Amino acid sequence: MKENMLEWMKLGNTTLPNALLTSYKLLNIDETELLLLIHVYSFTERGNSFPTPNEISSLMTINSTQCSDMLRRLIQKGLIEIQDGHSSDGIRFEKYSLDPLWDKLLDVFLQQKKAKDVMNQQTIET
Amino acid sequence: MKENMLEWMKLGNTTLPNALLTSYKLLNIDETELLLLIHVYSFTERGNSFPTPNEISSLMTINSTQCSDMLRRLIQKGLIEIQDGHSSDGIRFEKYSLDPLWDKLLDVFLQQKKAKDVMNQQTIET
Amino acid sequence: MKENMLEWMKLGNTTLPNALLTSYKLLNIDETELLLLIHVYSFTERGNSFPTPNEISSLMTINSTQCSDMLRRLIQKGLIEIQDGHSSDGIRFEKYSLDPLWDKLLDVFLQQKKAKDVMNQQTIET
Amino acid sequence: MKENMLEWMKLGNTTLPNALLTSYKLLNIDETELLLLIHVYSFTERGNSFPTPNEISSLMTINSTQCSDMLRRLIQKGLIEIQDGHSSDGIRFEKYSLDPLWDKLLDVFLQQKKAKDVMNQQTIET
Repeated sequence: MKENMLEWMKLGNTTLPNALLTSYKLLNIDETELLLLIHVYSFTERGNSFPTPNEISSLMTINSTQCSDMLRRLIQKGLIEIQDGHSSDGIRFEKYSLDPLWDKLLDVFLQQKKAKDVMNQQTIET
Repeated sequence: MKENMLEWMKLGNTTLPNALLTSYKLLNIDETELLLLIHVYSFTERGNSFPTPNEISSLMTINSTQCSDMLRRLIQKGLIEIQDGHSSDGIRFEKYSLDPLWDKLLDVFLQQKKAKDVMNQQTIET
Repeated sequence: MKENMLEWMKLGNTTLPNALLTSYKLLNIDETELLLLIHVYSFTERGNSFPTPNEISSLMTINSTQCSDMLRRLIQKGLIEIQDGHSSDGIRFEKYSLDPLWDKLLDVFLQQKKAKDVMNQQTIET
Repeated sequence: MKENMLEWMKLGNTTLPNALLTSYKLLNIDETELLLLIHVYSFTERGNSFPTPNEISSLMTINSTQCSDMLRRLIQKGLIEIQDGHSSDGIRFEKYSLDPLWDKLLDVFLQQKKAKDVMNQQTIET
């Protein structure tokens, strides 16, 4: 039994900022697109920063072609990008970066914050 | 600036077991259903254990009626349930429980584990 | 077995910003003080926002009196504070707030960031 | 400002099982030893699985020699071990493994669980 519990524990967790869960709708993405981004994030956390459409879609209810198409659209929407890297032995590799997602998420957060501050200001002035 | 950063930090995080992300497909739910369950979990973590379909759907790309229907289906599938509780002053209340989800997730994990052990055993015996 | 795994899972997790782990030393607190703050945070996350020195010290290697003294010192250092609250039925209660800790942690982060930017600027200008 | 927030976000989080926070005392370690183990865990999560006593102690209130001594004691207590690994290009490397810690933590959890079940059983029989 303990062995099973150890393996379960070692599968680990993925920690998401609540802002992503409460604001993805404002980034114009739906639930399937959000989960694709979360899968890429989770693969990266576990050490694979360039999962194939095959690897990703095997965990989803979409097939590999639909996954490729969705990734392309998310790149066009500016929510994920492919970056070049060089390993310590000089070998070139590609990896996904979710920096554009976090960047857009902060934009949405700061806009909401500003709107709230303006509203509070108006309430005080009235 | 620091004020914005403090507010961002206080939005907090939601931590999901990786097993949920890698195995929801085996529970016969799609990405929208998974996110509905994650929203319920995240509401509960933030102190609201019986969010309305309105509250949940306001964060999703589905409307309130679709959200009610989906909740009903998830209850029928045995992935979420409504529990009765009593507050310290004796008032009765309802809350969602995701125990059935974690229970089914463990079933899937233990089945996969067993299948893997059998395969390893066969490899050793060959 | 599954029952044990379910209970383990429901104990849950505590998620800490890495900045806290890498910078507490700069806040002039030692490991025991940091863990006292983490315990308060963890109690709060699990719904008890005003744990007694008894409850906290029962999880630590210090006794209840030492825990009270340490809490008093951390309040004096401006890392934790006691806030007043009112429940929905008008009853007054006290709770710990770690806002001063997050605030000071952000100060340290922004100072380090500024120092790094100045150094990078000087490197470019040389 | 957004740039500072992005950098803060990218520092990431460390997620600890609550059982570790509530039961380390039963593993006969104090707060400094627990934080040393948490630092090793956090380094590993960020991709460095064999941090030096220098790297670890730079984040703590102990010096490098004290850190080496403490690591040795924790290895003797059977809470952390050094494992051999081989990289994809055949180079041998060493890394810390916290498997012994999780193993002992599960032992404590299962013992407590058993004791509780026995007590509940006695209550029912009375």
